[in-house]
Amino acid sequence: MFDVKSVRETFALIETHFSNYPMEKETVPLDQCLGRILSRDIAAREDMPAFHRSSVDGYAVTSKDTFGVSESMPAQLRLVGEVKMGEKPDFVIRSGESAYVPTGGELPQGADGVVMMEYSEDFGDGDIFLNKSVAPGNNVIFRGDDVAVDQVVLQKGRRIRPQDLAMLAGLGLAVVPVQKKLKIGIISTGDEVVGVEETPIGAQVRDMNSYGVLALSQGLGLEAALYGIVKDDFDRIDATVRKAVEENDVVAISGGSSVGTKDVTVKVIDGLGAPGLLLHGIAVKPGKPTILGKVGEKAVMGLPGHPASAFVIFQIFGKHLIRTMEGQKEGFAPFVEAVLGVNYPSNHGREEYLSVSLQKNGEETLAMPVFGKSGMISLMTKADGYVHIKRESEGLNKGQTVQVTLF
Amino acid sequence: MFDVKSVRETFALIETHFSNYPMEKETVPLDQCLGRILSRDIAAREDMPAFHRSSVDGYAVTSKDTFGVSESMPAQLRLVGEVKMGEKPDFVIRSGESAYVPTGGELPQGADGVVMMEYSEDFGDGDIFLNKSVAPGNNVIFRGDDVAVDQVVLQKGRRIRPQDLAMLAGLGLAVVPVQKKLKIGIISTGDEVVGVEETPIGAQVRDMNSYGVLALSQGLGLEAALYGIVKDDFDRIDATVRKAVEENDVVAISGGSSVGTKDVTVKVIDGLGAPGLLLHGIAVKPGKPTILGKVGEKAVMGLPGHPASAFVIFQIFGKHLIRTMEGQKEGFAPFVEAVLGVNYPSNHGREEYLSVSLQKNGEETLAMPVFGKSGMISLMTKADGYVHIKRESEGLNKGQTVQVTLF
Repeated sequence: MFDVKSVRETFALIETHFSNYPMEKETVPLDQCLGRILSRDIAAREDMPAFHRSSVDGYAVTSKDTFGVSESMPAQLRLVGEVKMGEKPDFVIRSGESAYVPTGGELPQGADGVVMMEYSEDFGDGDIFLNKSVAPGNNVIFRGDDVAVDQVVLQKGRRIRPQDLAMLAGLGLAVVPVQKKLKIGIISTGDEVVGVEETPIGAQVRDMNSYGVLALSQGLGLEAALYGIVKDDFDRIDATVRKAVEENDVVAISGGSSVGTKDVTVKVIDGLGAPGLLLHGIAVKPGKPTILGKVGEKAVMGLPGHPASAFVIFQIFGKHLIRTMEGQKEGFAPFVEAVLGVNYPSNHGREEYLSVSLQKNGEETLAMPVFGKSGMISLMTKADGYVHIKRESEGLNKGQTVQVTLF
Repeated sequence: MFDVKSVRETFALIETHFSNYPMEKETVPLDQCLGRILSRDIAAREDMPAFHRSSVDGYAVTSKDTFGVSESMPAQLRLVGEVKMGEKPDFVIRSGESAYVPTGGELPQGADGVVMMEYSEDFGDGDIFLNKSVAPGNNVIFRGDDVAVDQVVLQKGRRIRPQDLAMLAGLGLAVVPVQKKLKIGIISTGDEVVGVEETPIGAQVRDMNSYGVLALSQGLGLEAALYGIVKDDFDRIDATVRKAVEENDVVAISGGSSVGTKDVTVKVIDGLGAPGLLLHGIAVKPGKPTILGKVGEKAVMGLPGHPASAFVIFQIFGKHLIRTMEGQKEGFAPFVEAVLGVNYPSNHGREEYLSVSLQKNGEETLAMPVFGKSGMISLMTKADGYVHIKRESEGLNKGQTVQVTLF
């Protein structure tokens, strides 16, 4: 019924269906807004600086008094005052006069430039000698030069970085308008899966998928809630997924990996309501059996049962889904440059996210594919990142430079 | 009294003095341990898997029954059972027999390999035809193959990544032993500085530095507390710094930028107790007037007064200090590769961290230095990252490939 989609088609599908997700808004205190997304443009309420500000320690002057001066022919100016930090100078500078001004201090009226301290000499007789000329505006940031009143400084949709938070402080925002965090509900299915606090008996395994998706979601800035482990039964899974959809923006279901279970998850997702199932299978390694559905505006994702596959799929496609819903464009993706330590043949026809570990080798960084029997879980913790192998690639060669995206 | 130190010397100084910081320990619930640092080695309490586990959907066999089979000459085996997920098989496999086993299911006793579903044919008459041979162990993860009991899986000092958190779940740790978060106390000084909620009058400016350092500290996983704005006065600064040192592991003081204030901060730091002042000045742009002291085992850092300088200095040296105290080695630092859009001459004799903005230019990423009058604060929000220009560099050329570390 559904064709297996390529990675590119899957990204496009996500963008088509989830770009207009109705994000809710709230305000949060300034000291808690790091990593949140601005819900409106932030404009300056005042000029910044709000006064003509010296950017150096030195002497405020009328710049034409310094034209043509040199070490052998300094300007001799009357010292008429000293500007104090944070205080408005109560004197003016006329031609032939100067005043000391500290970095960040306000320029006295009449002055239009500042000569740096190091180009001055003060013999203590009330005059100051300046041996360097300044043009009008030199070493001064005029009122509103940095940010003019009403100018938009930070735009709606920006994820607040540390320096943006500092700027919000400078603009006087003690509370900040942001989008509400997306909520994700996480469900594990499988008759063999038991809770973290339990000791597996016989062929049981502990629930790792819930916690992998929880941690990735937390890292993406979501509010994550666990809905526990549900037995492989249509009615039970259906009831839990409906509750999770009701209470969250996104629901992630990691399936038991048996064939029967996968069918149940698909049936549940398709039965939740329009528009229903969007995707059933991605041509990617690992993680082919990935499912995506839409209920109203909300997203429901079915992840592979194997922890390492579920992890990579959520890292790649879950992240793209969430950033799309938030209205965030993917930014510039940083990577570590490394030299591949072995030949690696690729699977033609599907893209691959190859997990690698990194090690320093002198000046060079070496990337080694994390090998082991397929299905080994401990490999996840040995990997530092992944190399994206494109569909059309015939493989990678030992000694080749690769770009490693860190996990 | 103190020589200005190079960047390399400053890093070495930090490592010499703060590598053995006594980190405290605590335990936290599994779902709250992301980004925390393990305070001890984590070993497996059980074999993982705890049973011989099939890694595919297929038929469990005694492998020698499949030796030499092919599509034209399949093995014909009696189907004696079906393994259920999570359940211990209640039958054994003898030569001439096979049983269905799902991915993740337990291998019946007697079986030592699994033939994948796609190499089988079932005509419904109680026999199964297998047209591919398997060697012993094929498509099976034997008990303890992934992780053996008592094997150390995650080492002390590891910062917990999402996949590590999933592994902790698999190992059954509902609570996780971690280092306590470092605490940082943040102080702003300067007669001209007013609070975020205030409207600056005359030549006053709002406190941006406290919030820049707060946000960077939060991003580094610290517990950060603001100690407010202190007037430029030895006794007041001294009292606040002493209180902050008492209550925190690290104290950051961002100075008013006037010459007088800097001296006060140095005097305060030097007077706190042994070993005292370690560093006064780094040969770096921006941020030369940086101070570092040590009181007992604790660190006190004096940052430049200018928000953009304080920000870069804390980003580079504050981070190194904190990672050193935590016992964390700097990992592999990812970057964005970009082409420089202009020529940029460097300052000989000191390293430089050049702020750049990034833009897509077709397939290429373009890095443009964030230009403006020195001292402009709005430049911080326009920068996406920085290019590290080494001391010996004579500058960068337009068209040159540069590595940009994202802010």
